[in-house]
Order: sequence, then C-alpha cells, then structure tokens
Amino acid sequence: MHNFDRIKQQIDFIYEIDKVKSIFRKTKLFDGSRYENDAEHSWTICIMAIMLKEYANFEINLEKVVTMLLLHDIVEIDVGDIFLYDPKRANIHQKEDQAAKRIFGLLPQDQAEYYYQIWLEFEERKSNEAKFATAFDRTEPILQNYKNEGLSWKANKITKEMVIAKNQHAKEGSEIYWQFILKILDECEQKGYFHAEN
Amino acid sequence: MHNFDRIKQQIDFIYEIDKVKSIFRKTKLFDGSRYENDAEHSWTICIMAIMLKEYANFEINLEKVVTMLLLHDIVEIDVGDIFLYDPKRANIHQKEDQAAKRIFGLLPQDQAEYYYQIWLEFEERKSNEAKFATAFDRTEPILQNYKNEGLSWKANKITKEMVIAKNQHAKEGSEIYWQFILKILDECEQKGYFHAEN
Repeated sequence: MHNFDRIKQQIDFIYEIDKVKSIFRKTKLFDGSRYENDAEHSWTICIMAIMLKEYANFEINLEKVVTMLLLHDIVEIDVGDIFLYDPKRANIHQKEDQAAKRIFGLLPQDQAEYYYQIWLEFEERKSNEAKFATAFDRTEPILQNYKNEGLSWKANKITKEMVIAKNQHAKEGSEIYWQFILKILDECEQKGYFHAEN
Repeated sequence: MHNFDRIKQQIDFIYEIDKVKSIFRKTKLFDGSRYENDAEHSWTICIMAIMLKEYANFEINLEKVVTMLLLHDIVEIDVGDIFLYDPKRANIHQKEDQAAKRIFGLLPQDQAEYYYQIWLEFEERKSNEAKFATAFDRTEPILQNYKNEGLSWKANKITKEMVIAKNQHAKEGSEIYWQFILKILDECEQKGYFHAEN
C-alpha cells in the first residue's frame, strides 16, 4: 500500500491556491463585462506565451515559463492584488516573499524550495524565462484596455506615458511583441482610451 | 518594419478563447461558493499535472500535457459544457470537432493544424501525455465534491459507482494517483456525499 502522505500534502496546496479565484484584478475582461480574477489571468497569459513563443528574444524553456505564469500570483492570497500604478507597490516585495514562503511551504520540502525559487526567479526578471513570461503578465491589461475601450485606464487616470514607463521592460523578453504593443498603444491614443491630462 | 499580420491573428485567437471565462461547469469550487468556469478549471488542472508529475505511469512531455490542459475546453465556446454524466455527451464529438476546427482555425495555418492535432490527441486518450492529462481533467470534480460535501453529486443524483465507471481510466495516466482518488471516494461514501440509491 502506497503511503499517501506526500500526495495529500500536494493536494492540500491545490486546495489552498484555489483562493486566487476570488482575487479580482483592476482590469476587466476583453469584453468589459466584469473584472478578471487571478486564475483567469494566469490561464490567458500562459496561452499567450505558448502561442507567441516564436517571438522570444532568445531560446527559452517553455515549461518553466508556463510554470512561472501559472503560479506567479498565488502570493496575492495573502497580499491582495495591488494595481500596477499604485504607489503602495513600492513596499510589497517583502510581504509577497513571506506569502510565497508560506504558500509554497505547504508542499513537500523539495517542491516547496524548487517552486519558491521559480517564483523568485520570475520576480527578479533576470533569466530569459522570467523576461519572456513578464512580457505577457504586463501586456494582457494593455490588450484588455484596447478591447474594452480603456475602462481601467480611464477609471484610474492612467496616461499613455504611464503605461509605457511601467511596462516597457516587456521588450527584454520580446522586441517584436513590444513593437506590436506600441502600435496598439498608438491606436488607443487615437481612439481616446487613455486618461487625458489637463 | 515587422509585418504584424501574423501576430494580430494570434492575438485574435486569444480574444476569442476568452469566452470560456463565461462558460460555467456543473461543479462548484472547493469552497462550494459558486460554479467554476472553464478557464479556472484549466488553470487548476495544469498546476495539478505539474505538481503530481512524479506519479505518471511513464515518461511524459510536460509541456505537451500543459498545452493540452490549457486548451482542451475551448471547444465549449461553441458546444457548451455538458455534464460528464449527461446522456447527451454520446453525440458531442462531431460538434466538438467542428468547434476545434473553427477556433484553432483562427490561428495562422501552421499553428491551427498543430494545436488542432494536440486537441485531438487529448480527446483520443491514446498517447502518454493524453492519458496523464486526462487524469486531472477527470478527478478535479471528485476533489471538489470531496471538499464541498458532494454538492454536484447530490444535485445530479450521482452515485459512487457512476463516478468510478466514468473516471477510472484516470489510472491509465497514474496508477498511484488513482489509488489516492479511490481512498477519497471511500471517505466520501462514509460521509454520505453521494446520491443514495433507493
């Protein structure tokens, strides 16, 4: 008879991270009907990374990219979703790090350490996989605002310059994809989707 | 200047498949608070496949497993979610196949063909990757009913025998994991989570 202690611990982790399905982001779905939750966001950006892998600036290990994207937001179970443009983000790293240690710590020790390191690698944005994964985490909201006519940009007084300043490191993962996003941003500007400064 | 026609087509696919976020399954979240949608379901079972890969009956290409699980339900955009125990499922394959051709057909032709084949491979459950991926697609609802005290089993008159008959091919992907699930089912029976036959 197999000892199921390890598998039970792994499944307990699955139960815990389900809480992200109740954590809502600050951006609405492409159709603008409601806010997106963290699980849905992760699902979309994983598929983006797969479908757009040909545009990576370098060779990538796609399995690692997808693992990063599936798991990167589980720390928000403890910390909540803080809008990219909110000044409070300056101080969240330590809290997110504690959350990552607690939540990945639910896994058996070998996995806890491995997946915490994957999470940290994504946060640090130094490896090729982290740079490429980040490109989709940062640009899904841009595409959402493009499709839903700037709902969260207008509601939160976000200008085009702010969007570029906060997201242009996406080009470190894919120059070509970032050029495409810049064209989208130009079109958004022409259509009046940004907050207009006085 | 890069020609963005291809990338536009790829992003149009991303917009289209977002509709799964409004397709609700027949099973509620682990906490029982509401029904789960297809995107959330796919997110969870991808992470299950990653965390439990050590239990696969054979060597697997995890990137392919995850790709199957992320994309397997997009056909429900056209066909809807039909409960596993609904007799109507006998006739859905042709409709799902048409849906897969339409939706993957939004991608550039090389990707359309490749991802349609991945979808078909999952449906046919013959390859190692398809068998392993299926184990999680089929058992997430069992774990959800275990955690939420049989909400969808009771509502739909599902017995323990029906659950085993419809899902036991999960063992073709992982014998050990299926043994764990059988223990969960025994516990569900003891706790009265199934529909009780008269």
